[in-house]
Amino acid sequence: MPMPSCVRIVEVGPRDGLQNEKTDIGTAHKIALIDRLSQTGLRSIEATAFVSPKWVPQMADAAEVLAGITRAPGVSYPVLVPNLQGYERARAAGAQEVAVFTAASEAFNRRNTNAGIEESLQRFQPVLERARTDGVRVRGYVSTVLGCPYQGEVPLADVVRVARSLHAMGCYEISLGDTIGVGTPAKARAMLRAVAAEVPMAALAIHFHDTYGQALANVLACLEEGVAVVDSAVAGAGGCPYAKGASGNLASEDLVYMLHGLGIETGVDLPQLAATGRWLAGLLGRETGSKAGRALSA
Amino acid sequence: MPMPSCVRIVEVGPRDGLQNEKTDIGTAHKIALIDRLSQTGLRSIEATAFVSPKWVPQMADAAEVLAGITRAPGVSYPVLVPNLQGYERARAAGAQEVAVFTAASEAFNRRNTNAGIEESLQRFQPVLERARTDGVRVRGYVSTVLGCPYQGEVPLADVVRVARSLHAMGCYEISLGDTIGVGTPAKARAMLRAVAAEVPMAALAIHFHDTYGQALANVLACLEEGVAVVDSAVAGAGGCPYAKGASGNLASEDLVYMLHGLGIETGVDLPQLAATGRWLAGLLGRETGSKAGRALSA
Repeated sequence: MPMPSCVRIVEVGPRDGLQNEKTDIGTAHKIALIDRLSQTGLRSIEATAFVSPKWVPQMADAAEVLAGITRAPGVSYPVLVPNLQGYERARAAGAQEVAVFTAASEAFNRRNTNAGIEESLQRFQPVLERARTDGVRVRGYVSTVLGCPYQGEVPLADVVRVARSLHAMGCYEISLGDTIGVGTPAKARAMLRAVAAEVPMAALAIHFHDTYGQALANVLACLEEGVAVVDSAVAGAGGCPYAKGASGNLASEDLVYMLHGLGIETGVDLPQLAATGRWLAGLLGRETGSKAGRALSA
Repeated sequence: MPMPSCVRIVEVGPRDGLQNEKTDIGTAHKIALIDRLSQTGLRSIEATAFVSPKWVPQMADAAEVLAGITRAPGVSYPVLVPNLQGYERARAAGAQEVAVFTAASEAFNRRNTNAGIEESLQRFQPVLERARTDGVRVRGYVSTVLGCPYQGEVPLADVVRVARSLHAMGCYEISLGDTIGVGTPAKARAMLRAVAAEVPMAALAIHFHDTYGQALANVLACLEEGVAVVDSAVAGAGGCPYAKGASGNLASEDLVYMLHGLGIETGVDLPQLAATGRWLAGLLGRETGSKAGRALSA
């Protein structure tokens, strides 16, 4: 299988990244972050989450963020919604793309959302129906695809089943997430291959966390399987709530550096993206989590 | 080409790592570092360098370090030597394996060693002759194999020529180093393949710096080509003198984590290695440069 000639990067820094950072950069800076990212050539920027502010206080300003950003032509700004209520709030705030999420691990899903996987999927049914009527695209996340902090191993069959269900329900793209970053390349590749046997590769994305430094190597293995959509976060924003002090998302800058080195187009202006990452790191009061970002500033 | 079932890691932290750290941990701690590494299952630990203390003050205590360590059975402790004089000092201090080094970039070699590549190779001739008589194994380093801070692109033909010369002169192993960490997987793979057409793969090692976060992905690509020896440094020790604030060597802990995940044996006890990395980071007054090392301490 030849590697893809183009990869679409789904920038998840403003949501998955900031949600797991200790420092809250504030609404105005969130808006500025998304606006800066919109100028880098990225085509998908996950903007925020319409979840309960009680559980996720970092995203309490979801409506203000979505109202405040300047939408660039050709860029989509998906937002996370946990259920129909979240969907309605998101739509009222102007969302034109949403994302739903469930784990492949039953134990994780129960702890994280207080619902079993089947129950989560049922909650998404009305969201997907409404979205279809509204002409809103829905992305689906499957988390813990390579391991779970509670149950350990996650059977491949469970990952495949959940991904297939989300796709069958109408999600245009399924993002397969190694939430705790424990995966290594051969396992990542085998997981992707198993899912791709049931869901078209063109409808799959990969989402690796860099907890053990494996994210980019995992991406490489999956590119060799033909995947062409990769999630990442500028400055490697985020962390791992299950491993204190651990690294966060794969850094978008390191990903872009590799893809361009492989001759794969992304449409992203790397120096501009790296500058945005360093600016964000400054707001977070720490060094950028992107090595390419650091090297490019030297 | 199937991946190797075992990989030998050449731990370069005490030399390549410490040489590029701002903080000098002192002779006693260098000895303690090597002794701790000797207990992790590593089989090759680059201990120090017998170079001019005028140029590399960090390695001025080479003889004391080599005299002070407790050699573990089955572990080799190569030391860097720039010429016959260095070789003689190393031998007087008890070295049983040495390493010589040259760049594939003429510009880099002139700036770094004040000699052209041919001149460097000629300097090694008496070292290799003496080593043969003494029954001392010689490792050869080729640096700047994927790019040079002075001349930019380094032609593959130059890398192949230098590697072939070192091998022909009697080096048992040639370590191919991306000194400034600019390489990406396809380029790393193409470089290795070109060299392996002239030097047996069993005599090749790879040495990646993580300046742009690419090191582990590059290793993965090269494993797929069949290489079975990889250089790395505990805690990701080191830095890049050509990119201030940039990351150093590939972290041994992240490498071991990936290899074990791929089902490749290393003989290394990862928790013990990670503990050594965190201890070293403490001495260096910074966080460990290994993400796996950080996650394993959580």
